[in-house]
Amino acid sequence: MIFRNSLLSSASVINKVKLQRVVVSTTTPALASTPLIRRCLFSTTNNNTINTTNTINNNTTSTTLISKLKHQLVDSINSNNMEASTFSRSGLEDLLKRRFFYIQSFQIYRGVAGLYDYGPPGCAVKSNLINFWRQHFVLSEDMLEVDCSALTPEVVLEASGHVAKFSDFMVKDELTKAYYRADHLLEGHVEKMLEDPKLTPEKIAELKHVLTKAGDYPIEELKAALTKYNVKAPETNNAISEPYPFNLMFKTQIGPSGHSVGYLRPETAQGIFVNFRRLLDFNGGKLPFAAAQIGNAYRNEIAPRSGLLRVREFTMAEIEHFVNPEDKTHPNFAEIADIKTNLLSAAAQDTTKEIEVTTFGEAVAKGLINNQTLAYFMARTQQFLHTVGIKPARLRFRQHQSNEMAHYASDCWDAEIHTSYGWVECVGHADRSCYDLTVHSKCSGTSLTVFEEFKEGPKMVDSIDVNMNKGLMGKTFKKEAKAPMDYLAALADKVDEALAIQQQLTEKGVYTLTIDGVAFNVTKEMVTLTKTQKKVAGVTYSPHVIEPSFGLGRIIYAILEHAYWVRGGDEQRGVLSLAPIIAPVKCSVLPLTTSEKLAPFVSKIIKILKEAGISNKVDDTGNAIGRKYARTDEIGIPFGITIDFTTPEDQTVTLRERDTTKQVRIPIADLAETLKKLCDNTTTWDVVSTTYPIYDSNSE
Amino acid sequence: MIFRNSLLSSASVINKVKLQRVVVSTTTPALASTPLIRRCLFSTTNNNTINTTNTINNNTTSTTLISKLKHQLVDSINSNNMEASTFSRSGLEDLLKRRFFYIQSFQIYRGVAGLYDYGPPGCAVKSNLINFWRQHFVLSEDMLEVDCSALTPEVVLEASGHVAKFSDFMVKDELTKAYYRADHLLEGHVEKMLEDPKLTPEKIAELKHVLTKAGDYPIEELKAALTKYNVKAPETNNAISEPYPFNLMFKTQIGPSGHSVGYLRPETAQGIFVNFRRLLDFNGGKLPFAAAQIGNAYRNEIAPRSGLLRVREFTMAEIEHFVNPEDKTHPNFAEIADIKTNLLSAAAQDTTKEIEVTTFGEAVAKGLINNQTLAYFMARTQQFLHTVGIKPARLRFRQHQSNEMAHYASDCWDAEIHTSYGWVECVGHADRSCYDLTVHSKCSGTSLTVFEEFKEGPKMVDSIDVNMNKGLMGKTFKKEAKAPMDYLAALADKVDEALAIQQQLTEKGVYTLTIDGVAFNVTKEMVTLTKTQKKVAGVTYSPHVIEPSFGLGRIIYAILEHAYWVRGGDEQRGVLSLAPIIAPVKCSVLPLTTSEKLAPFVSKIIKILKEAGISNKVDDTGNAIGRKYARTDEIGIPFGITIDFTTPEDQTVTLRERDTTKQVRIPIADLAETLKKLCDNTTTWDVVSTTYPIYDSNSE
Repeated sequence: MIFRNSLLSSASVINKVKLQRVVVSTTTPALASTPLIRRCLFSTTNNNTINTTNTINNNTTSTTLISKLKHQLVDSINSNNMEASTFSRSGLEDLLKRRFFYIQSFQIYRGVAGLYDYGPPGCAVKSNLINFWRQHFVLSEDMLEVDCSALTPEVVLEASGHVAKFSDFMVKDELTKAYYRADHLLEGHVEKMLEDPKLTPEKIAELKHVLTKAGDYPIEELKAALTKYNVKAPETNNAISEPYPFNLMFKTQIGPSGHSVGYLRPETAQGIFVNFRRLLDFNGGKLPFAAAQIGNAYRNEIAPRSGLLRVREFTMAEIEHFVNPEDKTHPNFAEIADIKTNLLSAAAQDTTKEIEVTTFGEAVAKGLINNQTLAYFMARTQQFLHTVGIKPARLRFRQHQSNEMAHYASDCWDAEIHTSYGWVECVGHADRSCYDLTVHSKCSGTSLTVFEEFKEGPKMVDSIDVNMNKGLMGKTFKKEAKAPMDYLAALADKVDEALAIQQQLTEKGVYTLTIDGVAFNVTKEMVTLTKTQKKVAGVTYSPHVIEPSFGLGRIIYAILEHAYWVRGGDEQRGVLSLAPIIAPVKCSVLPLTTSEKLAPFVSKIIKILKEAGISNKVDDTGNAIGRKYARTDEIGIPFGITIDFTTPEDQTVTLRERDTTKQVRIPIADLAETLKKLCDNTTTWDVVSTTYPIYDSNSE
Repeated sequence: MIFRNSLLSSASVINKVKLQRVVVSTTTPALASTPLIRRCLFSTTNNNTINTTNTINNNTTSTTLISKLKHQLVDSINSNNMEASTFSRSGLEDLLKRRFFYIQSFQIYRGVAGLYDYGPPGCAVKSNLINFWRQHFVLSEDMLEVDCSALTPEVVLEASGHVAKFSDFMVKDELTKAYYRADHLLEGHVEKMLEDPKLTPEKIAELKHVLTKAGDYPIEELKAALTKYNVKAPETNNAISEPYPFNLMFKTQIGPSGHSVGYLRPETAQGIFVNFRRLLDFNGGKLPFAAAQIGNAYRNEIAPRSGLLRVREFTMAEIEHFVNPEDKTHPNFAEIADIKTNLLSAAAQDTTKEIEVTTFGEAVAKGLINNQTLAYFMARTQQFLHTVGIKPARLRFRQHQSNEMAHYASDCWDAEIHTSYGWVECVGHADRSCYDLTVHSKCSGTSLTVFEEFKEGPKMVDSIDVNMNKGLMGKTFKKEAKAPMDYLAALADKVDEALAIQQQLTEKGVYTLTIDGVAFNVTKEMVTLTKTQKKVAGVTYSPHVIEPSFGLGRIIYAILEHAYWVRGGDEQRGVLSLAPIIAPVKCSVLPLTTSEKLAPFVSKIIKILKEAGISNKVDDTGNAIGRKYARTDEIGIPFGITIDFTTPEDQTVTLRERDTTKQVRIPIADLAETLKKLCDNTTTWDVVSTTYPIYDSNSE
């Protein structure tokens, strides 16, 4: 294999990746009616991360200045990992297309950007990945899996903030009306400016600063920069329009009336939030619990690119773990506390740029990761990614910096996988506090809180006895009386405020309540607030939610890159070293020749494998056996059974392991059990190759 | 269980269900540029089938005349199946909602018609069904599974005919602009007219005829009938508009330009057709092969109803089996030839109305089912449906009548399942000839044919040597000469036509070619056509396609209806007798009390089950054991493990079977293997209950 596992010795932030679902300016109060949603998970503006690290890609069209600027880190990684430099993206892409892992959709109609179809091997990899995800998360963790509609009425996405703010900024050529993503255009323009050899050092610094910030600019700053640098439409040199937001959701009409706007969901999470009440009931009214969903989401990208990494239709797997905000410990935390991981903290991104190798237990203990539950899911994600074939050294968790994290979130960590496109965000992990449930509760008018009984039984708590003279208040405030009366009644549970008011009433005889801008002079004759105690059975709260969110297409692409190499440096002999659990087919069945003597063994072995549930692929063409092996290596089949002329004599076949090409001679009767164990990791190739005689073949 | 298997003793057509993808008037030539698509599989106009048979439903709101008229058959079935009359649809619906199998989507926002969310048990049933479908079809039959985009550009659906014709007819209230489905409105109006006691027998016959035809009327007849019977808007009595087609596809824009119209696919099949060339290559250029796809499709129903049966977003599983049109035999036909089935032929629908119980072998032998491959898939569908829990007596195959079948199709059979809504089409089986590939080939300009070498090697075939005097033709026809020259050149492969032309040239000296309405007098000096022979290696043809198409939501609903009953007539004790393969959870773990003595065994058993991959649900509340059993019965958990006070003594537990409530006492050590075998059908409860001592419990 070309990429060996090696710990990253140094690391730095490549660029600021904006991945939060909702960014609200810090001066905006929580739950403001129009939170500024700029970016969802798997954001559309982190393309700089994706489309830049061309240093290990032999086949990029041009290595732009912006790439050079932003990716010194990856250069240094690669210089420490010489084998990586043999990776050929075009070799992999050619293989994937030729063997129909996936291709652009509707190709006979010239295709559609950002849409991909998975062919048989890609489809099998995807369904293996989904099944293992379900096994690893839903079944192992007793999650409540749901399957919700992708068509979503406008009211739901208005509540979540997507209708107002799930946008990228566009500009148009004033004459031709051609459109561009505004931040891309600015970056391209500034890169060109930087080519001017006569620039002063100050100007260079300024322009470089613009490059690192362009993707983060709010609309006003973007507009100012486009004007300042006199950016024109690149093809025509025409003037461009001011930047304007383009909503990334696909819009449609639900029903025939023409008045019911709907969207294709841009993420699966909302389906879980709107079903929270029923899920809570399903769980017996108890927290914590996690709901999960695997399904498609849709984003109308302005400029899809980078293959499966930036698409318009994609499969997500999302978990929403609901917890009591006062208790984010996790009962199984001890099981993962000692697992090592690569963390790139927010602080390190500002300072050393170095990845810290630590354990999840240490990271929580020193407050680097906010809480046990968040760390637990990060660890489970790491286990998942390692198992499906992501190289440990090429996986890191990057913490969101304060300026890219939503105001309500306590902590966010993206699992980033290193590919030839750079570090790619593949799984987000966010502690989203109570944001989502609170906005849906408010907009739908449905309570989405939890009542939790005290474990130790009911207890006495401080309370306020509110004794009002309603007659006097009614006479004084007339039809406005309801507001101050409601306010005072609600003081029953606000002990401190009530006592402060009573103190002023006692001292001055009057207290001025201001409700929605209207002042009410409440006198000591109108109300008496007395401290008392009451018995309460439990507490009502808005659960917090911790969300791991997986982009399966991105993970599939990363798996394929990490698995790809060429045997003996021969470009014609590509191999995908896919883990058996992910491999599209587990085993090949290869008669050495087309001889009639061998044919009955083909059917016999296929029957045995089918009964054992081991997927297989037969190649009974007249091709040479070496050619047959090469074809199975290309689609990642881990084991190959060869039927040769010894088979009819002693009922044995050879079994070949893909990565080493080593073979053993094994009785047909032992095949099913051995393969099953190899595929579910209950035995290893080392054990098999000491159990059975090695078969020495010159066929490779 | 309430529904016993009993063969249907008599059967009649309920109504004509229009289910073909494309209906073209028989006078329209094949591949006319605008085929009249009225209906897709799982049509939106077969609701009469669905919404009528209320006789076994205790809880319908009103049994309309149209129901009575159309469903004499089902009455007779039910009178032979008294237990069916105890079925309570409201009881089932209450259970499904309460236990969160599925609910209307976005319920906290008052829901959206035709959209449903699956909760945890429904989601598990769905994923079990999909996994078994993949096992039963894709893996067992070596199909090529693909996973294609749901977003589809307009050009593709223009080619398939959906843009022009995938419509239902609507009318609007002229004043309020409220909309109605035209055929529904007509039916409702005519039903009301039929309530008039003064109608003559002739008028009654006429109106009844309208009722049976309304859903089939082309627009002109629908318009005429609406006018003739003076149909008004029902709520306002206002005049209504003329009927007009409403396209059922959800429309959107792909990309930010605003000029790229896209639709959500109304079926998954098109993704397979447009990838035909790559799939053929993947299969080594050889036919036959089948491609399969499981995925969501979308139809903007005018009036969704009947729960999961008529929805706007649904999961399909489709197979496209491509064959040589000259050879529709199937290599495994013998394996299914002797299987019995219930067939309602097109002829029987016109005459006896009786279901014929026959074998697939006989049906093909006597030409009832067009070919072996079509019959093979019908048999495999039947096996699939029986295994997932559809009662054999409540499954039939109904053949399309000539007026509901597309002109190009050779034969279509719908698997219909009997439910409280009547017979519901759940799986279509159509021999679609070469239609789909031919339209896409024509519209995309990509050849989608297959070249097949003769098995016996190249052979000599008759041919024509076309010897033209191009100079003379050029001089005579000037710039029009290309058309007759092309025509004559193409005669090389048209032996009979060429010889007839040559005969006339020889006899009369001239032959008049008419090409696109232009006449060319070709003289014997211009061309000589001589019979000869040429060597050809094989034949090029457009493959035919045989399509089984599954509506998974409908099958899920039917499974749930067939599985539902109430124990001992107690409405509070609903049971879902789901097959273990489909059951959302395989096993419950129930400590008899909350005693601390039993708790360690709960964790121990859960660990054992998890390691064995057996999904389980614990109920460690303080509820009585009978109540716990009832709760697991409701969600169809087939086996229950009870930990009682004997457990700590001898390490045994009781194992309960859901349907019989019988229990055995079994060592904990034997649990995993026994449950695994019970769930994958390698043992039966009968065997288990003779292997271990029966445990007599009074807990039920």
